[in-house]
Amino acid sequence: MKDQQGLLFVLSGPSGAGKSTVLKEVLRRNPALYFSVSCTTRMPRPAEIHGIHYFFIGREQFEEMIQRNEFLEYTEYAKDYYGTPLLKIQECMASGTDVLLDIETEGAQNVIQKMPEAVRIFLVPPSFEELERRLRSRGTDTEDKILARLQTAREEWKKMPSYDYLVVNDVVENAVQELESILKAEHCRTARRIEQMKEAL
Amino acid sequence: MKDQQGLLFVLSGPSGAGKSTVLKEVLRRNPALYFSVSCTTRMPRPAEIHGIHYFFIGREQFEEMIQRNEFLEYTEYAKDYYGTPLLKIQECMASGTDVLLDIETEGAQNVIQKMPEAVRIFLVPPSFEELERRLRSRGTDTEDKILARLQTAREEWKKMPSYDYLVVNDVVENAVQELESILKAEHCRTARRIEQMKEAL
Repeated sequence: MKDQQGLLFVLSGPSGAGKSTVLKEVLRRNPALYFSVSCTTRMPRPAEIHGIHYFFIGREQFEEMIQRNEFLEYTEYAKDYYGTPLLKIQECMASGTDVLLDIETEGAQNVIQKMPEAVRIFLVPPSFEELERRLRSRGTDTEDKILARLQTAREEWKKMPSYDYLVVNDVVENAVQELESILKAEHCRTARRIEQMKEAL
Repeated sequence: MKDQQGLLFVLSGPSGAGKSTVLKEVLRRNPALYFSVSCTTRMPRPAEIHGIHYFFIGREQFEEMIQRNEFLEYTEYAKDYYGTPLLKIQECMASGTDVLLDIETEGAQNVIQKMPEAVRIFLVPPSFEELERRLRSRGTDTEDKILARLQTAREEWKKMPSYDYLVVNDVVENAVQELESILKAEHCRTARRIEQMKEAL
């Protein structure tokens, strides 16, 4: 049954949880799902595409959007702004399209304050040892950077209790299926369907 | 990821919702799921098999089981006992096997009192008109019986708010997929996984 209202799913998870791999596969299998793209004032890196990885906009434009309350949440990091534009998300949800938002734990908390009905999902590696192994096996980071990522992951790990679901990425296929199940099951929750069904009586 | 504890899923739904068709398909696709078989003191009907449709037992044996607290719930209807045996359900859950229980709304309430962690799912037809159409199209019931079933369905329909999920059986395949999603997604709920993941830190 088609529900009238789309849902907002907020996905967090520490670096090394394998979020981008899982996300890519979930989006490939669910083309109707809208993946929210953030705005940033930082310069695009090589291979980053405007509208895919970020909307790269100027500082002035970003601040105008802040003034007009056009962000679901935003933050300033290393002298650059990062924010989640609200309009497209609202349009999708109003037309019955689900929205998936990839965001770190602090941003997720800000989203929840504005939209408490959002479904919070935390993607975790099976263990902290495995997370460390994955971060090291990339072979691209310095030891300092790896230690910093591990410290951040440890902090993020503690935020797990504030999420609705924990998806464990031991095997990508399992994690993808679990995430898809959550997307589907959440539409069946009584609170979301009861009005429609009362009318059907 | 394999969870240590199996979950109990309680499925209710009015006559004509198509519960047996949906159940059969879900059980076929998920052979690891244990479908709880009830005990009854009534005589088996033709084609009913002991251990499949019911455990057909004597009145004395049933009452002994009541004394020994061996039912999750039981009721007396038209001078016969009907009950959900507890032991097998506990064994399954302890060994990590999910249990599915097909039970009417009153029995479901009794189950929840004893096992509040059970997940309650209500299967509904897309509308009351469709329910009536389905009941009439069977062509096996008298008008009186149809009206009685509709009255019961109307009463059961009102119990929807006490369920966690509403699965709408408009198309069997959709209902089966929604039910399967709920079975999977419930294992991902933070409350069920958090202890394991805390240990993993």
